[in-house]
Amino acid sequence: MAKQLSNPSAHDVARLAGVSQAAVSRAFTPGASVAKATREKVLQAARELGYRPNLLARSLIKGESGIIGLVMGYPRSIFLMSALYALSARLSQAQKHILIYTVEGGQAADPHIEGLLQYRVDALLLMGIGISSKLSAHCRAKGVPVILFNLRSGETQGFASVTVNNREGGRQIAEHLIAQGYRRLGFIGAPEIYRTSREREAGFKEYLAKRGSARFEREDGCYDREDAILAARRLLSRKPRLDAIFCWNDHMALACMEVARYEFGLEVGPELGVAGFGDIDQASWPSFQLTSYSQPVDALIQKVASLILQPPHMQKSAGQFMIDGELKRRASTHRIAT
Amino acid sequence: MAKQLSNPSAHDVARLAGVSQAAVSRAFTPGASVAKATREKVLQAARELGYRPNLLARSLIKGESGIIGLVMGYPRSIFLMSALYALSARLSQAQKHILIYTVEGGQAADPHIEGLLQYRVDALLLMGIGISSKLSAHCRAKGVPVILFNLRSGETQGFASVTVNNREGGRQIAEHLIAQGYRRLGFIGAPEIYRTSREREAGFKEYLAKRGSARFEREDGCYDREDAILAARRLLSRKPRLDAIFCWNDHMALACMEVARYEFGLEVGPELGVAGFGDIDQASWPSFQLTSYSQPVDALIQKVASLILQPPHMQKSAGQFMIDGELKRRASTHRIAT
Repeated sequence: MAKQLSNPSAHDVARLAGVSQAAVSRAFTPGASVAKATREKVLQAARELGYRPNLLARSLIKGESGIIGLVMGYPRSIFLMSALYALSARLSQAQKHILIYTVEGGQAADPHIEGLLQYRVDALLLMGIGISSKLSAHCRAKGVPVILFNLRSGETQGFASVTVNNREGGRQIAEHLIAQGYRRLGFIGAPEIYRTSREREAGFKEYLAKRGSARFEREDGCYDREDAILAARRLLSRKPRLDAIFCWNDHMALACMEVARYEFGLEVGPELGVAGFGDIDQASWPSFQLTSYSQPVDALIQKVASLILQPPHMQKSAGQFMIDGELKRRASTHRIAT
Repeated sequence: MAKQLSNPSAHDVARLAGVSQAAVSRAFTPGASVAKATREKVLQAARELGYRPNLLARSLIKGESGIIGLVMGYPRSIFLMSALYALSARLSQAQKHILIYTVEGGQAADPHIEGLLQYRVDALLLMGIGISSKLSAHCRAKGVPVILFNLRSGETQGFASVTVNNREGGRQIAEHLIAQGYRRLGFIGAPEIYRTSREREAGFKEYLAKRGSARFEREDGCYDREDAILAARRLLSRKPRLDAIFCWNDHMALACMEVARYEFGLEVGPELGVAGFGDIDQASWPSFQLTSYSQPVDALIQKVASLILQPPHMQKSAGQFMIDGELKRRASTHRIAT
């Protein structure tokens, strides 16, 4: 067995394997043409010497780093975390890796995006956060594809954007609540700049308007659980008492449900309908049984991955990709207890 | 304003700014000595040209990539996700970035570690997952510091390891349950190879043995919620009925609590004490009020970050760092209803 060198080069591997240096390079390049026997000789020699091709150096030559830059807003979001997990699993299969920044809700993504661009990322994915028009122009000039996932605020600016059909979800929740016999409706949303909340509310309102009255009570709960608790208290203190509340995400809806039960002594379902959006794991737990419009993580992430992995010459295409979820009817909106 | 070049170099920036190329390089190197006026001229020229220093190229020269490789086992763990978030926020401040792989519970981390080493990571962090002795020797030879966080299985092999004081947590849970008057105890754990479960159980057993009887019923629940539900059903079906169950993590404990309430009709607290480990957000929700030994994310991550960020010549030191949590007493173990 060959002695392990402290920093073996491709040249050392080529010599030990008895092949050319070009053959070593090809053996380590996915998809490159190389005879199976040659490849095995190279891998064997590399193992013996402890050689690893330097991906950083290769990325300088090929112009591809294999790194996908990710800036994630709202890192405490259970939905975004599950999306990150699904994406990481999918990209690992394609030998791509995620370089991650997390950003608190109120902060701007721009400084982080600048940091990521310095690594020559192959693509830039923004989850739950927007990008300034200045920086987006820069990415376009550099030819770095930008993909927006569940954009919460800002504009899509001609980039590819993947999201669940927020408006349709809001519409189906309204239809379901009315069909169940609820009439005094409330909504816990986010300030106007939050696109997902705005779209869900628009769909909700649209259905109610079609039915003759678009009136509903409204409070902002933004994202923290504490905010949602305060919003739920304000909403449930109004007279006459509301009989159903739609929350712009499940996280808020679970908090609202607990305020209704443990502070106002209401029976969720018969006395107060509560619906959310996202269908996170906890929604189906027996403690909650929360009616929710699902965000299908797998389908959404499959679309995101296909945009990231498509060949560079295809990546010019922008477009907004909307994927339908599904209304999950559960006990939190059973007006007649079962 | 200067025309934006498609791929401006440091040379172009130097020419436009009227400074040397070395000055451009220094202006983009954190901590390097450069006059304020020079730096501003360089940044202005860089902005006009759309220049960004190539960190990949610099990392080849300096031997530091600024990238911390992270392999995360059990990516569905709410605790590990919150640790990831805290770490990302901390490292961003230090201009370090996380390149992430997630690995399903049953899989080996080794292929992913090999992938990360190809990026010449400055350090390797393993969360909830172990490393083979072969690869750990390789990291040592390459001088890549390895930090183990909440190692679930495998050995620490002389690397730095950061974990909560699992044994002490298990001990305090046992002491608390006995003090509350519970006597027929059960434990939902994981198979023997899982270090965290094993240590929590050892502390639990140790206290009981000291009190005179180390007997308790035991089932494996591993990590999935579904596993925990099955384990809880098996445990609660035994006769005579147990009066308290300690679960090796909160995720399992919440599932156990729901099985007790909704399938066995037991009042959690008076009829069945339930305790967990980790003190995740949900533990303090009114629906659960779960007694738990906390894993202090901030203190743990501060230790991990200090190990990652310490100067290279200090990084030889290994050692196991154990941080104490705190017992959070809640209604799930109030034997007398309040």
